Amino acid sequence: GKHYDWLPFELLLVMHSLYVASLFRRTEYTRFWPALFWVSFIAAFGSGSLVNICFHDYPAWLRSDAILLTYAVCWYLVLFSPGDVVFKVYSMLPIRAACKLATTLLKARNVANSVHRAVQVFGPSQIVAPLFFGVLGGCGGTYLTDMASYILGIKKPIEFLEPSWATRSVFLSAAFYLFAVHWYAILPQDVATTIGVSVLAAQSLGAELTGWPLDFTAPFE
Amino acid sequence: GKHYDWLPFELLLVMHSLYVASLFRRTEYTRFWPALFWVSFIAAFGSGSLVNICFHDYPAWLRSDAILLTYAVCWYLVLFSPGDVVFKVYSMLPIRAACKLATTLLKARNVANSVHRAVQVFGPSQIVAPLFFGVLGGCGGTYLTDMASYILGIKKPIEFLEPSWATRSVFLSAAFYLFAVHWYAILPQDVATTIGVSVLAAQSLGAELTGWPLDFTAPFE
Amino acid sequence: GKHYDWLPFELLLVMHSLYVASLFRRTEYTRFWPALFWVSFIAAFGSGSLVNICFHDYPAWLRSDAILLTYAVCWYLVLFSPGDVVFKVYSMLPIRAACKLATTLLKARNVANSVHRAVQVFGPSQIVAPLFFGVLGGCGGTYLTDMASYILGIKKPIEFLEPSWATRSVFLSAAFYLFAVHWYAILPQDVATTIGVSVLAAQSLGAELTGWPLDFTAPFE
Repeated sequence: GKHYDWLPFELLLVMHSLYVASLFRRTEYTRFWPALFWVSFIAAFGSGSLVNICFHDYPAWLRSDAILLTYAVCWYLVLFSPGDVVFKVYSMLPIRAACKLATTLLKARNVANSVHRAVQVFGPSQIVAPLFFGVLGGCGGTYLTDMASYILGIKKPIEFLEPSWATRSVFLSAAFYLFAVHWYAILPQDVATTIGVSVLAAQSLGAELTGWPLDFTAPFE
Repeated sequence: GKHYDWLPFELLLVMHSLYVASLFRRTEYTRFWPALFWVSFIAAFGSGSLVNICFHDYPAWLRSDAILLTYAVCWYLVLFSPGDVVFKVYSMLPIRAACKLATTLLKARNVANSVHRAVQVFGPSQIVAPLFFGVLGGCGGTYLTDMASYILGIKKPIEFLEPSWATRSVFLSAAFYLFAVHWYAILPQDVATTIGVSVLAAQSLGAELTGWPLDFTAPFE
Repeated sequence: GKHYDWLPFELLLVMHSLYVASLFRRTEYTRFWPALFWVSFIAAFGSGSLVNICFHDYPAWLRSDAILLTYAVCWYLVLFSPGDVVFKVYSMLPIRAACKLATTLLKARNVANSVHRAVQVFGPSQIVAPLFFGVLGGCGGTYLTDMASYILGIKKPIEFLEPSWATRSVFLSAAFYLFAVHWYAILPQDVATTIGVSVLAAQSLGAELTGWPLDFTAPFE
């Protein structure tokens, strides 16, 4: 069974939206709210949209109204609620940690789905396509957001130019799925996905709760 | 019947091309004529191309030679005719107003078609997709041109960052089609399109002839 | 028969990769190796990928692992081999000329294939689409690389803004295929392709061996 699927999608969506919106409270963005909204929306849902477009499918937020509308409400509340009350509640550690966990879960699932989809389309003997789409499914939105920030003149590290933990962990997950499920067939697809999601979630939660840089790919650097 | 369709497309095409080309006589662009040509071509036909590409179709100007060739001739004449005679004739008020009207007609039709197409693809219960494609079908070319201008270092207001009348009127038209035709079924599709096109055309013509800023969405600001 | 097809693709791939990688030894790029790698990879395989994507197909390097892996090895060796030994061997005139010839062969084939494909999709009566895709199949990667360089702040001439021999020769080849094969049916498709590839190859080889600017489109300027 899909043990990693027991949380309702609507709840994950709200928590994910709160977490991503909270990353875009920087003052450089707030001058132009439409750009601010779309850049942060791309950060939240750009990875999945990119993968869908590459596979000649429509982005999920065009197929289901709930995604854009939920995100818009969460984004508005995090940035512009009276007395900033929503952000103050959000900032309490357990809530913030839970929301970050939701983002990690959705991202980890997206990586797994992208890898499995690439294997279906390009065949099980390929390496490049599943890894490429795995990384795109995990970090594509970040790359797009970084590019927009760079063009708009906002100074921040560019993930694509200096790959950090985000790209490395996603790359390792994609390689794990590809080899464990499709090459050596050690694990069934849903078990591998559960393991991959759990490892990323544990790491993300651990980093948030302890403040330690729990970067398990550090030795690879 | 399609009452808004009585003008031959070829004539609309010439007038639309003259109007858009006349917007790109700015000196900042003239240094590199290939970039100048393509940027203005995107301003003229980018919206429809974007919508076609999103729906996995080919842009109209790849399917029919007449579009690019007509535009190229008009663009050349408006920018480089001997003694600037073509631009001087074009600049007479009735001709300029008629050409602007042609652009408005094509744009208004494009918005209507994009909304109806999105409803066909994504179903009548969706809000986000029809409004998104309606705005893209009306202003997508402007967003692309603004982005190109911004990257090329040309200073002008960016429609996407500071949405003006162009985006707001297109958004309202798309919402009108969606609610009147597809949600409440008050109006048949061609009647709604005729009304939408007429309102936009009347507003555009009125603004050109009187010089007043006839911005009927002003109260929404 | 496909007389221009007697060289094994694997050999052409290695030589093409060496040639393109050698163009990206500039110091401005070397700061961020992932960007350096992808920009040069786009220069090498972006044209074909663009044409494939436009025709709703997947890029060749996603369908076949060999392309990306071969390119990665060649790129690494040309830029980072111990004592720069690979680049020193590569720089000997016959090897360098042969590698440049491989790039020219692949590019010339790509132009021919793009034109023939556009004729199949858009019909034999069109002019714009075959010429557009012919130029995209020959120079699309260059346009993308130039754009990336421009955005990254690297000063170099922009092919798209100031079209040089690259764009002009590709445009003339595409026009030759379109008129000789599809309009006047003077030549069968494979003979025309062989002629087009041979002319471009002879010109490229001649320019490399003599150092003269053998630009046979110069009178057209």
